[in-house]
Amino acid sequence: MAGTDHGRRQAQAPGPSFILVAPQMGENIGAAARAMWNFGLDRLRLVAPRDGWPNPRAEATASGAAPVLDTVRVTETLAEACADLDLVLATTARPRDLTKLVLTPEQAMAEARAAIGREAKVGVLFGPERAGLETADVARAHAIVSVPVNPAFGSLNLGQCVLLMAYEWMRSGDATPPAEYVLAGTKRATGIEIDKLREHLVERLDAVGFFFPEHKRPSMIVILQNLLSRAPLTDADVRVVHGMIRALAVKVKGRK
Amino acid sequence: MAGTDHGRRQAQAPGPSFILVAPQMGENIGAAARAMWNFGLDRLRLVAPRDGWPNPRAEATASGAAPVLDTVRVTETLAEACADLDLVLATTARPRDLTKLVLTPEQAMAEARAAIGREAKVGVLFGPERAGLETADVARAHAIVSVPVNPAFGSLNLGQCVLLMAYEWMRSGDATPPAEYVLAGTKRATGIEIDKLREHLVERLDAVGFFFPEHKRPSMIVILQNLLSRAPLTDADVRVVHGMIRALAVKVKGRK
Repeated sequence: MAGTDHGRRQAQAPGPSFILVAPQMGENIGAAARAMWNFGLDRLRLVAPRDGWPNPRAEATASGAAPVLDTVRVTETLAEACADLDLVLATTARPRDLTKLVLTPEQAMAEARAAIGREAKVGVLFGPERAGLETADVARAHAIVSVPVNPAFGSLNLGQCVLLMAYEWMRSGDATPPAEYVLAGTKRATGIEIDKLREHLVERLDAVGFFFPEHKRPSMIVILQNLLSRAPLTDADVRVVHGMIRALAVKVKGRK
Repeated sequence: MAGTDHGRRQAQAPGPSFILVAPQMGENIGAAARAMWNFGLDRLRLVAPRDGWPNPRAEATASGAAPVLDTVRVTETLAEACADLDLVLATTARPRDLTKLVLTPEQAMAEARAAIGREAKVGVLFGPERAGLETADVARAHAIVSVPVNPAFGSLNLGQCVLLMAYEWMRSGDATPPAEYVLAGTKRATGIEIDKLREHLVERLDAVGFFFPEHKRPSMIVILQNLLSRAPLTDADVRVVHGMIRALAVKVKGRK
């Protein structure tokens, strides 16, 4: 399509990382790489790709989008893939039993661009082909991205979803930036800081037998994760909450 | 994806006809039908499809998008396909030796919607898979539509091009809806619930001497207040946090 100078600028500027969670078909990984590179995005991460990595089928399909595949990052867990990210957005089709901000692709990429302008690192999650993201994965995100489709027929596949998000990233290049959080001298907490905070809280709650009955523990932990990711927490906030948890639980721990 | 009432309206309102000129693979015709129906468009025309019509491969690929394939119109020439149209837009990747208005997909679909609002009939042309539209076909159009892509890599295929145009048709339908929280069966906590939660937390933290030195107490309480008000908490969240505070602090309280 008729290229503009606009596209060239974007290929060089930093963009969000697109994170494919448990992708199954190599062809879809290749198609995602091509869709990204069409709009100048080159940061692809894979979490536990079914057929391992490297994947010859992905390479065959991605032909021409080598700059994306050459720098792909592969991790075993989503936590690792998100460890250095400040803002995580989860694409999902289905309504969830999670209280979470829901954005259109346009709003999401405007947020991403504003965050990157503040030197934050941004990731966009895409679930596996059939089932989409699991609820625990969505809970990790700061917001949900949902494409408003025909309610009688919403059937976007992985490659189409990546394409629309990449396209909106390109479009966001000229958009007025949205309202942003004033961070008051601190910076937004990273994924790993939030993970550690949740682990700390769970450890202390375990010590007092909070998760009872035991079979409810996993869903309670998802609720906690969702709570901690919903507010934009700063690193100062994280320190304060660690301090509170420690203070509340210190004597209990001493008695164990 | 999270369907909205918006999509339903569009499926019933008239939209532009998408016209595939000399499409080769049945699979691509099916993919185009699916992409259109995702965004409520159901008027598909084919000009001289290579493998004739009907095409079992198109039907297999389009599964679920039957409302589009069932009403497809097939003609031998582009002139016949355009005979009843008032506004024709040609999607094309390459620069042309034609003096012609060039629109972005967003501008093109805004034009299309405005024209349809005046009861005009609108068609969007898509060329065959390899070569794209011929210059003579483009010359017939009132304007060119071009997707601004990475100049180092512009490789949108037929299905992707149809998807982006259909998506922009949907977007042109209304002002962007505001970002919203999915509340997952609960309601947003009231101010008084948040106040009580903060008071509970402060009381327990006071009991363990968290606010030290004393002169820092007011500013620490402001930080807590800010933390609790930043995330949109539901009443369910508030109950969970009360429970955690109680669990962590219960034995401490017993020792006071």
